[in-house]
Amino acid sequence: MATININYEKLCTCYLFPEVTRHLKVFAEKNPGAQLYRLDVSDNTQLSVPTVVNGLTQTSDRLSQSNTCGYDRHYQGEEFLRLAIANHYDERGVKLGLDEIFVNDGAKSDIGNIQTIFGPQNVVAVQDPTYAEYVDTNVMAGRAEAHNSITCQYAGIAYMPCHERNQFFPEPPTQKVDLIYLCCPNNPTGAVATHEQLKRFVHYALKLQAVIIFDASYAAFITDPKLPRSIYEIEDADRCSIEISSFSSSCGFADLRLGFTVVPKNLTTEDAPAGKLNVLWHRRQSTFFNGPSIIAQYCGAAALSPSGRRECQAIVDHTLDNARIIRDALTSRSLVCYGGQHAPYIWAKSPGGMRSLDFFGKLLSEAHVVTLPGSSYGPHGEGFVRVSAFARRECVERASASIRENLRV
Amino acid sequence: MATININYEKLCTCYLFPEVTRHLKVFAEKNPGAQLYRLDVSDNTQLSVPTVVNGLTQTSDRLSQSNTCGYDRHYQGEEFLRLAIANHYDERGVKLGLDEIFVNDGAKSDIGNIQTIFGPQNVVAVQDPTYAEYVDTNVMAGRAEAHNSITCQYAGIAYMPCHERNQFFPEPPTQKVDLIYLCCPNNPTGAVATHEQLKRFVHYALKLQAVIIFDASYAAFITDPKLPRSIYEIEDADRCSIEISSFSSSCGFADLRLGFTVVPKNLTTEDAPAGKLNVLWHRRQSTFFNGPSIIAQYCGAAALSPSGRRECQAIVDHTLDNARIIRDALTSRSLVCYGGQHAPYIWAKSPGGMRSLDFFGKLLSEAHVVTLPGSSYGPHGEGFVRVSAFARRECVERASASIRENLRV
Repeated sequence: MATININYEKLCTCYLFPEVTRHLKVFAEKNPGAQLYRLDVSDNTQLSVPTVVNGLTQTSDRLSQSNTCGYDRHYQGEEFLRLAIANHYDERGVKLGLDEIFVNDGAKSDIGNIQTIFGPQNVVAVQDPTYAEYVDTNVMAGRAEAHNSITCQYAGIAYMPCHERNQFFPEPPTQKVDLIYLCCPNNPTGAVATHEQLKRFVHYALKLQAVIIFDASYAAFITDPKLPRSIYEIEDADRCSIEISSFSSSCGFADLRLGFTVVPKNLTTEDAPAGKLNVLWHRRQSTFFNGPSIIAQYCGAAALSPSGRRECQAIVDHTLDNARIIRDALTSRSLVCYGGQHAPYIWAKSPGGMRSLDFFGKLLSEAHVVTLPGSSYGPHGEGFVRVSAFARRECVERASASIRENLRV
Repeated sequence: MATININYEKLCTCYLFPEVTRHLKVFAEKNPGAQLYRLDVSDNTQLSVPTVVNGLTQTSDRLSQSNTCGYDRHYQGEEFLRLAIANHYDERGVKLGLDEIFVNDGAKSDIGNIQTIFGPQNVVAVQDPTYAEYVDTNVMAGRAEAHNSITCQYAGIAYMPCHERNQFFPEPPTQKVDLIYLCCPNNPTGAVATHEQLKRFVHYALKLQAVIIFDASYAAFITDPKLPRSIYEIEDADRCSIEISSFSSSCGFADLRLGFTVVPKNLTTEDAPAGKLNVLWHRRQSTFFNGPSIIAQYCGAAALSPSGRRECQAIVDHTLDNARIIRDALTSRSLVCYGGQHAPYIWAKSPGGMRSLDFFGKLLSEAHVVTLPGSSYGPHGEGFVRVSAFARRECVERASASIRENLRV
């Protein structure tokens, strides 16, 4: 008889999201017709980059008029796109071979799937707070033990606390771990690591033959040229790191469903000589994935063209302006804010030691602004809310005005 | 230190494809400038359905002008598309709930991923010959032992032979298995099961609490109304079957990257009451996948509209005409052919007991037609080649003329 994957049974069911949904429902019932300002989930599916729109239209024409290359194509993505990505890295001094770049259907898939090329015994380390997927996918793969509903943590996972004292970027673990997930710029805290901070992780990984899985989905939001946008800007990081990135947020259009993963040939572990993990990932991708849509790939190439890049940069700047407007409103009410300078997320501290969910409720009931409680990202997220700058300017301005006028502090 | 997934080491490396590639290379060197007729891999990325082209163009406009619903959408796919899919099934007398339908980025991904919601100890059964992915994904997940390079089979996998005597559709296994992959219409043989044949599998699965994973990617090619297009046309199949399907081949456009999986609420196993596997798959998809592109979903809905369906049917008919033209040419040379009547693939028998690879080489060198050796799909594929009808009419006609004129028998 068929049996289920019992690791799913270990998954935490104490999610805050049903609670968040309940709050929103109660609010809507109490305030019929009230305008809500949604700064919780990303609202960036509007296709607002003209060069990408043109790319999409031209691709539609091209596909309907002439022949393309069918399934006899690269599972890693079309060469023209991988070349454009390699050139983009080259500008930061990072040299990548085309066979080290794997185009995918968005960062989320590869963030989840990358663990499948590693053995079940690897010990996983994550930042706390963290994007839930790093943990959940490893729980489902059997790399965690029981979930503790008090600490909201899994036994067997190493959590690296991120708090005000370390400016929300952790030191490498003190214990021995094998796979280290780092998200930088960080979701949810908006924190960005310096060269020195990443160097310490690379040093740790090389010493202990650990692998860093570096989620650079929000790298385009780093405006300070002194800050690294890629882990590969750190010397020898290609010997210990996989980098996953996305077109979604930087192109202002989540629905491209396009991203990429870099698995360097130089990457090695105890049982994988140079090149081996690259081969394993190629095998995984060609077996489980038919390659990203050719439409999305043409759009991605358009986004990386000179005019596309100018327009995408304008989208990034616009989003960072959104973040500044929201930050200013929050700080005008004497609230302490982190992030939002090199990231699309602001990490706002609850006033007077208020709990995340209460601060979320206060912002909702008083200012009609929807955020996400920080505690939903892990125990060290308690006492904060995440505010997203992925919203339209009008929404951002009204939300900010409402915070200034209506939030009681 | 990080370690790799050692199950990858078990994967067979005796693939015929490098050998096929070598043959093509040698041919090109010996025959510079010669025209090859490629009936091996699918050539259906041309966007030739006007309603779908319009859908794509309109979607580009819509996305660039107005707001869409962001990530706050259904991971299972937009409701309008799931409703269109449910209506499509309803016409065959199959009632599906919208929460039983999971839209994906093409059948291949879910064919690979579906096994992850089951435990590692489940015994897997596949047809032989078979699409390699059913086996490979389970090997990578640890459900197989050593590969035998003589039999080209894995220990621990149950193979169900498909041959002329059973018209290429097997009886249920004689041993006890847990997960049964069935592909119907079949890739590579083009065989289609009758109600009676599927009933026997459903009976087996219900009796032993096995789960059938039914790959209906080519269902649109079934023209005989008496033949089932869905496993759910068999009574009680919803209690033991998952069905995976695709828009790729029936819409004549593989690059939609759109398909769907049905996980019925009634499906149960020993340790999963009704609804449980549906919940597990939802959890899997929402964790590892961000949902299919909204662009593809609008195109999919266009394909299922009345005009879209007429046009898609014309594409299917055109492909089946291709198959007929190829079959006629092959049989005119006294070759025995199977499939191609309710499937886009023809399963052509090698003359005089010739081996697959030799017959492939003969078709290549004499008629300049490229096929795929049947033995690359498993031991019972030996003695056949797969000929794909997914090609442009001009190519099909020239290939057929060349077979009639140049193939020596």
